[in-house]
Amino acid sequence: MNTFGTRLKFTSFGESHGKAIGCVIDGMPAGIKFDYEFLQNELNKRRGGLNKFSTPRKENDRAEVLSGVFEDYTTGTPIAIIIFNENQHSKDYENIKNLFRPGHADFTYFHKFGIRDYKGGGRTSARETAVRVAGGAVCAMLLREFNISVESGVFGVGSIKSKLKESEFDFNLAKESEIFALDKDLEEEFKTEILRAKNAKDSVGASVFTRALNVPIGLGETLYDKLDSKLAHALMGINAVKAVEIGDGIEVSSNFGSQNNDELRNNHFLSNHAGGILGGLSNGNTITLKSHFKPTPSIFLKQQSMDINRENVICELKGRHDPCVGVRGSVVCTAMVRLVLADCLLLNSSSRIENLKKIYNL
Amino acid sequence: MNTFGTRLKFTSFGESHGKAIGCVIDGMPAGIKFDYEFLQNELNKRRGGLNKFSTPRKENDRAEVLSGVFEDYTTGTPIAIIIFNENQHSKDYENIKNLFRPGHADFTYFHKFGIRDYKGGGRTSARETAVRVAGGAVCAMLLREFNISVESGVFGVGSIKSKLKESEFDFNLAKESEIFALDKDLEEEFKTEILRAKNAKDSVGASVFTRALNVPIGLGETLYDKLDSKLAHALMGINAVKAVEIGDGIEVSSNFGSQNNDELRNNHFLSNHAGGILGGLSNGNTITLKSHFKPTPSIFLKQQSMDINRENVICELKGRHDPCVGVRGSVVCTAMVRLVLADCLLLNSSSRIENLKKIYNL
Amino acid sequence: MNTFGTRLKFTSFGESHGKAIGCVIDGMPAGIKFDYEFLQNELNKRRGGLNKFSTPRKENDRAEVLSGVFEDYTTGTPIAIIIFNENQHSKDYENIKNLFRPGHADFTYFHKFGIRDYKGGGRTSARETAVRVAGGAVCAMLLREFNISVESGVFGVGSIKSKLKESEFDFNLAKESEIFALDKDLEEEFKTEILRAKNAKDSVGASVFTRALNVPIGLGETLYDKLDSKLAHALMGINAVKAVEIGDGIEVSSNFGSQNNDELRNNHFLSNHAGGILGGLSNGNTITLKSHFKPTPSIFLKQQSMDINRENVICELKGRHDPCVGVRGSVVCTAMVRLVLADCLLLNSSSRIENLKKIYNL
Amino acid sequence: MNTFGTRLKFTSFGESHGKAIGCVIDGMPAGIKFDYEFLQNELNKRRGGLNKFSTPRKENDRAEVLSGVFEDYTTGTPIAIIIFNENQHSKDYENIKNLFRPGHADFTYFHKFGIRDYKGGGRTSARETAVRVAGGAVCAMLLREFNISVESGVFGVGSIKSKLKESEFDFNLAKESEIFALDKDLEEEFKTEILRAKNAKDSVGASVFTRALNVPIGLGETLYDKLDSKLAHALMGINAVKAVEIGDGIEVSSNFGSQNNDELRNNHFLSNHAGGILGGLSNGNTITLKSHFKPTPSIFLKQQSMDINRENVICELKGRHDPCVGVRGSVVCTAMVRLVLADCLLLNSSSRIENLKKIYNL
Repeated sequence: MNTFGTRLKFTSFGESHGKAIGCVIDGMPAGIKFDYEFLQNELNKRRGGLNKFSTPRKENDRAEVLSGVFEDYTTGTPIAIIIFNENQHSKDYENIKNLFRPGHADFTYFHKFGIRDYKGGGRTSARETAVRVAGGAVCAMLLREFNISVESGVFGVGSIKSKLKESEFDFNLAKESEIFALDKDLEEEFKTEILRAKNAKDSVGASVFTRALNVPIGLGETLYDKLDSKLAHALMGINAVKAVEIGDGIEVSSNFGSQNNDELRNNHFLSNHAGGILGGLSNGNTITLKSHFKPTPSIFLKQQSMDINRENVICELKGRHDPCVGVRGSVVCTAMVRLVLADCLLLNSSSRIENLKKIYNL
Repeated sequence: MNTFGTRLKFTSFGESHGKAIGCVIDGMPAGIKFDYEFLQNELNKRRGGLNKFSTPRKENDRAEVLSGVFEDYTTGTPIAIIIFNENQHSKDYENIKNLFRPGHADFTYFHKFGIRDYKGGGRTSARETAVRVAGGAVCAMLLREFNISVESGVFGVGSIKSKLKESEFDFNLAKESEIFALDKDLEEEFKTEILRAKNAKDSVGASVFTRALNVPIGLGETLYDKLDSKLAHALMGINAVKAVEIGDGIEVSSNFGSQNNDELRNNHFLSNHAGGILGGLSNGNTITLKSHFKPTPSIFLKQQSMDINRENVICELKGRHDPCVGVRGSVVCTAMVRLVLADCLLLNSSSRIENLKKIYNL
Repeated sequence: MNTFGTRLKFTSFGESHGKAIGCVIDGMPAGIKFDYEFLQNELNKRRGGLNKFSTPRKENDRAEVLSGVFEDYTTGTPIAIIIFNENQHSKDYENIKNLFRPGHADFTYFHKFGIRDYKGGGRTSARETAVRVAGGAVCAMLLREFNISVESGVFGVGSIKSKLKESEFDFNLAKESEIFALDKDLEEEFKTEILRAKNAKDSVGASVFTRALNVPIGLGETLYDKLDSKLAHALMGINAVKAVEIGDGIEVSSNFGSQNNDELRNNHFLSNHAGGILGGLSNGNTITLKSHFKPTPSIFLKQQSMDINRENVICELKGRHDPCVGVRGSVVCTAMVRLVLADCLLLNSSSRIENLKKIYNL
Repeated sequence: MNTFGTRLKFTSFGESHGKAIGCVIDGMPAGIKFDYEFLQNELNKRRGGLNKFSTPRKENDRAEVLSGVFEDYTTGTPIAIIIFNENQHSKDYENIKNLFRPGHADFTYFHKFGIRDYKGGGRTSARETAVRVAGGAVCAMLLREFNISVESGVFGVGSIKSKLKESEFDFNLAKESEIFALDKDLEEEFKTEILRAKNAKDSVGASVFTRALNVPIGLGETLYDKLDSKLAHALMGINAVKAVEIGDGIEVSSNFGSQNNDELRNNHFLSNHAGGILGGLSNGNTITLKSHFKPTPSIFLKQQSMDINRENVICELKGRHDPCVGVRGSVVCTAMVRLVLADCLLLNSSSRIENLKKIYNL
């Protein structure tokens, strides 16, 4: 349902054109310094309207913290964050009230629930991911107490894919790039590809790389809360993601064991084909993940479709949309990985009796 | 932890060389005819020792149903299934007692728990997947009441990948093939590749295609129990899987929206790039999934590693292992998808007030 | 943690003197007419400041629905409700900043979390129960589609207990009584007892009776989500409740089986000692429950206590408090039972294969 | 459903006359010495056939540990325990195949599921509680690492109730008494009352007191996993329990705040009306609980009832039953409280950031 996580529970609510979207983060330990500025900065990375590569919909996305923080420290009670919706153009959606936009959840929501909030896509809008970014930012406040960091960037747009090794991806560039590009040599080509799609009233897919640094050994729970299971769940659940890879990902299927196994020497792994996860648990290496985004389904070309009365119609969309949803999606990838790692960090606290005794000073 | 599912809960237990492995399936509706023969047949597909392409370890894998079935019908109470372990060669593992096998969970389990059952890999052995197959078989008894079926096969071994379209995959072949091959023209090449790896004391990766037919529209829950999230969680949690794709998967990142959107005409989708899932809910189309398996980490070549005292060692394995874990893994893919679909089918029963009223005859 | 329920999940957040309190109700079926007026009326029953028998703290407790409702119908997405705090006198609490009020959670929260929001009791304030009432009201919108109703009243205040049989309790009186009394002959005595405690700077306990009518047979899940387990969990979790009885409750321990068993004749139970629950499942009879509330811990008499530095202190409270927390608590009992029954109603929808088939029109 | 607990999950399965009953305990930390003898001793306390005050059904109740323990230490993987059923007299139940025994779950199970295992009560038999005792015993192995202990005894049988204060209950007596009596002066009267009921083909109710010693401050989670909520859930879920009290329980409703508040002096509580729980969290005092059991519903007197065809019938039972189910129920109370406390102990491990840092050696 609308809750994510086992020990650290993240619950979200809200529709694109409703009064507000928001989330409740439950299970955060008490005593963590709350960094309001960081929270807002993270939201600013995701919000639209900043440049020509994203949706023109401008939202301030101002996070208001309603509970769970007292005199700037977390108290162990649920942290509720709310973002009021501001810049809705609901009339843009009048013409799609009764029709199913191709590639969208309109069709499935209507059939599942018999009713749907068609304005701006309602609950299925990527706008909901703003609160995931808020949740991820709060988790980052926990993770940095352990020196764990997570970052993402774009390494492919449409048919243009970076040839760099993962270790060569430029995360400093990604921080400053309008499209979070990881490859300096391709950044302009990526931009050109996005604008090409946009000008053709079309959209384009993208690929995102995410890494997590300094993750301690042993995060993840056996057997059905494995770290890789949880990460795949988190990333595949982001709007438009259709494939998730861990470590060498698809490539492993073409390799031999002697190539793929990460050997050990002098207490270090000699390679990281596994992407930092062995047997469902973190192995101390950098965790490496790839998420592949489909092109934004909202395009301005004419498309064949049907309406709620099963009549054939031609769909011609209005509204404001990202030409490449993967770009802002990369910010969401970071957020989701943070949520997973924070959850696993808490779950892992009771894995050994000697650890548990430390807590109770025995 | 060791429970999978939300409304239909599957809990497993057991180690490779312990007394038994088993599972408890909770939430299965009452009144379903229990098919013991089908259950055993499914287990027979997965068990080893049947041919030269899998491990020589022969287990009968006889499922014993301990509860939840009365006079051949499910009663609504938990169904416990147990499989006693029979053919352990625990002494094969004496030499790895203190060392970490490359590519294995030894390293991470030891660091997480401070103790590990090293015999046969303990809980991390692929042997555990037998009970997942049992669980999946029980779910299939529910799914077939709704005419839903799930099947899998191998479309790539090592660098040899089928060029067939998904619709051309030959599931009749897969049923009879010793390696569950989906492509008649490549079956022999696949086998040769496996034996080549085996003879080189090595192992090789593989790719598995899974499809689900006749899935009703609307399965999956918003937002963090989306069908695609749950499937990714299920498949990525299978031992050795490092990448999961839904529908066109990775390819979508290279495409334009106008190529990728599935248009509608005469109440039908004109294509299935989405793999049967839109907005996290099934759309009535065939669900299509790809899982990519790494090569079996257990190889017989010498490898560099370390032991629990952080000393460098050379690892030289004995024991009985699959040269290509993806082959038997395909049976597990089917099982996991069945578990997910059965869970979603139950969860969906309360999505609309008019459906709920039917149950209570209002 | 801060989520209640299995299939219908109710998550709450907020502190007494923070910006707002609120809740998210997830899992509500789509297509239910949303009754805003009823929601507000339920909240009005619980809010303070209405008469001399409750706290003088006046809050409008205006519920704002932020999501999950579209054109007055539920959509199947999470329903978020927020109530902004208005009438805080935080300075009343400056003097208890560092001390532990006897009978309060101050001591335990401080030791668990190392930090507490002392203003108005923070998260532990009974103020939080306003959102439970909101959640219960939303559940009532679902329950009334099935003609199920829940109601509560007060049958004892301090040492004065009603001698009426449960079937003689006057729920029409309770609806109009300022103290929700169930016994006309004792209403004035109850009031006098409350004022007597109030005037003595003290507080007094109370007992609440709750009944649920028209509950269909079979609600509750085996074995650890039994209906009685869930009701006990829900009621014991209300601030100040220290005992919960189902049906004849404590009395059953004094009886013989031949007295206690409810015999059947002509398809009806001849008695209802069981309180409508057999084997953890509803049996079609009226569900009857008793909750016993301790006296409000906040009293204005001097009390011995200690502060966060372990120094002995004399505690002398200011602020605004209910002299008998059980009175308004009765509204919360109704709410919690509604939450439980709604959850069970949804969970029960998949208990039988023939029911499940009805939903999918098979 | 059939799983109990949040971080420590206890799942059970099995019917009274099926092949076996069993449980899976998931989430137990690694590194705990497993005490097989203690486990069996705990089961021996509960099993029937030992004396004339319990059922004549003799079962060895031999616990077999199938997984999760390696070389006598827990490994962090699920611990499965199985008890094979041995001494079934299934033919005793042929005559109740189609009728509903008064006071039993027959009626509700049949209506919920449309099918029931009538032999020995199937899943609803108190026999299932044997595995709860096993689960509780495993939890005790964890709890004693923290010096926490739980014990129960009987303080009332039928109309005979002990007048002793809780602090005067004699737990040494309870350990040796055939009926776990807590009051030396009443033990014989209790026995006489049980035999009186038995000889009259009837049964009788009982009251059980449970206490937990040395529970650290702060166990329990806000707000809907409060320790008192969880204990009430656990105890009310035991077959035949109809009322649960914490601390002074029902009495609190008759008292004034000045009587009921536990004052503090010199870092100690001066009384324990609260029963060791404040604001849903343990306060370091002894936790005190009362559970009230109804008389065993199986009696040998003739009773009016109906059958599955809605025909009136006279029910005359055969079989072997406890004349006072509360006696053996006291062993189950201890087990359930152990399960709750172990779960809370694990959950509490991540409540504060400074505790979490200890685990990761920061």
